[in-house]
Amino acid sequence: MIGSLRIMSDAPSPRSSVRRLPERASYDRDLINSIIDEALICHIGFVHDGSPVVIPTIHARVGEVLYLHGSPASRMLRGMRSGDEISVNVTLLDGLVLARSAFHHSMNYRSVVVFGSPRIVADDSEKLNALRAITEHVVPGRWDDCRPMTDTEFKGTLVAALPLNEASAKVRTGGPGDEEADYELPIWAGVIPLSVTPGEPIEDPLLRVAVPVPPYVSRYERPV
Amino acid sequence: MIGSLRIMSDAPSPRSSVRRLPERASYDRDLINSIIDEALICHIGFVHDGSPVVIPTIHARVGEVLYLHGSPASRMLRGMRSGDEISVNVTLLDGLVLARSAFHHSMNYRSVVVFGSPRIVADDSEKLNALRAITEHVVPGRWDDCRPMTDTEFKGTLVAALPLNEASAKVRTGGPGDEEADYELPIWAGVIPLSVTPGEPIEDPLLRVAVPVPPYVSRYERPV
Repeated sequence: MIGSLRIMSDAPSPRSSVRRLPERASYDRDLINSIIDEALICHIGFVHDGSPVVIPTIHARVGEVLYLHGSPASRMLRGMRSGDEISVNVTLLDGLVLARSAFHHSMNYRSVVVFGSPRIVADDSEKLNALRAITEHVVPGRWDDCRPMTDTEFKGTLVAALPLNEASAKVRTGGPGDEEADYELPIWAGVIPLSVTPGEPIEDPLLRVAVPVPPYVSRYERPV
Repeated sequence: MIGSLRIMSDAPSPRSSVRRLPERASYDRDLINSIIDEALICHIGFVHDGSPVVIPTIHARVGEVLYLHGSPASRMLRGMRSGDEISVNVTLLDGLVLARSAFHHSMNYRSVVVFGSPRIVADDSEKLNALRAITEHVVPGRWDDCRPMTDTEFKGTLVAALPLNEASAKVRTGGPGDEEADYELPIWAGVIPLSVTPGEPIEDPLLRVAVPVPPYVSRYERPV
């Protein structure tokens, strides 16, 4: 009832080992990659002046590396420059699980946790590849349509690379898992599926040139 | 162009002061509450053995308090028992902002950051209210339809309360903000709106009693 949960292989490190409900854990590379690729944003955790801070940001994956970007002035990226450890969470919400008891209510989700110390990308060609990947991660097809990046813009953006070798996934699928006696109760139970849906594109009112809506905008969808 | 962004009042504490793009910041209580109430999950950041950890979880707001819950065995709630500081981020993604340059691409979002030290809720009546609020936060109308909570379930759930006095919101709305010269380029620009959409409810195949789908399920929507 708790769904198709798998332990594909062992955790890559003790802290990457999923402790709560380990039957929902997976260290399967393809599953981890697919969750990272489908999610539009991730949440980064870092320690600043001894306090934990969580910030949502855009990411992209290239092979076994997660790329993050931002302004050189950002607290998050300043912290990364010092080689501090960070934690990244990527979560896709797939549904609300209504059980007979409040206690067994749950959500269906696919989630990835990554631990590691990011490095600031110094190589220009790796940095350009990462910036292209970040744009293409959000709107595939967009990079080649954009006005090319200027030198000032390129230098004014910091890119950080986090290896994905300490990553784990946690997945819940399927219907509610109720107490045996509760199945006799006249209470509706099931799942309300959830998805992130694109609406009609809104053209910038400041468009001065008539340009048709590109297919990657009018037919926008997340990879699955 | 960057949208309707407001500084309603001063930040409640130095660390709650939004540093990056402060023109997108707000400390308006109603705005903060509406973002927390609409979001289905939040991301909690805490420090465990010196490393930052980020975990997605369900929350509910009652007045000026954010409630979180979990198993007494969870790392997150074990940390809370010691009075450690945490950080909570709540983010709603409203759209993808396509500018003429890759550099000015952005997202429309509404986001809240809370800092504080949670307390474990010891009072039974406050705890029951919080558990009801958490269930009702996800599916309004559900609590009264559930099989009442047993004493074992009640005792087997830990509830933590985080005051919302150190909270700030950050909001981006509207179309792209491009470089002046770029507006002449024949490049489509605008916004792809995004929303979290409920699908057709999936009845638990293990339902043994014919029960009609409750209106709060068939007409499910997030508060706005």
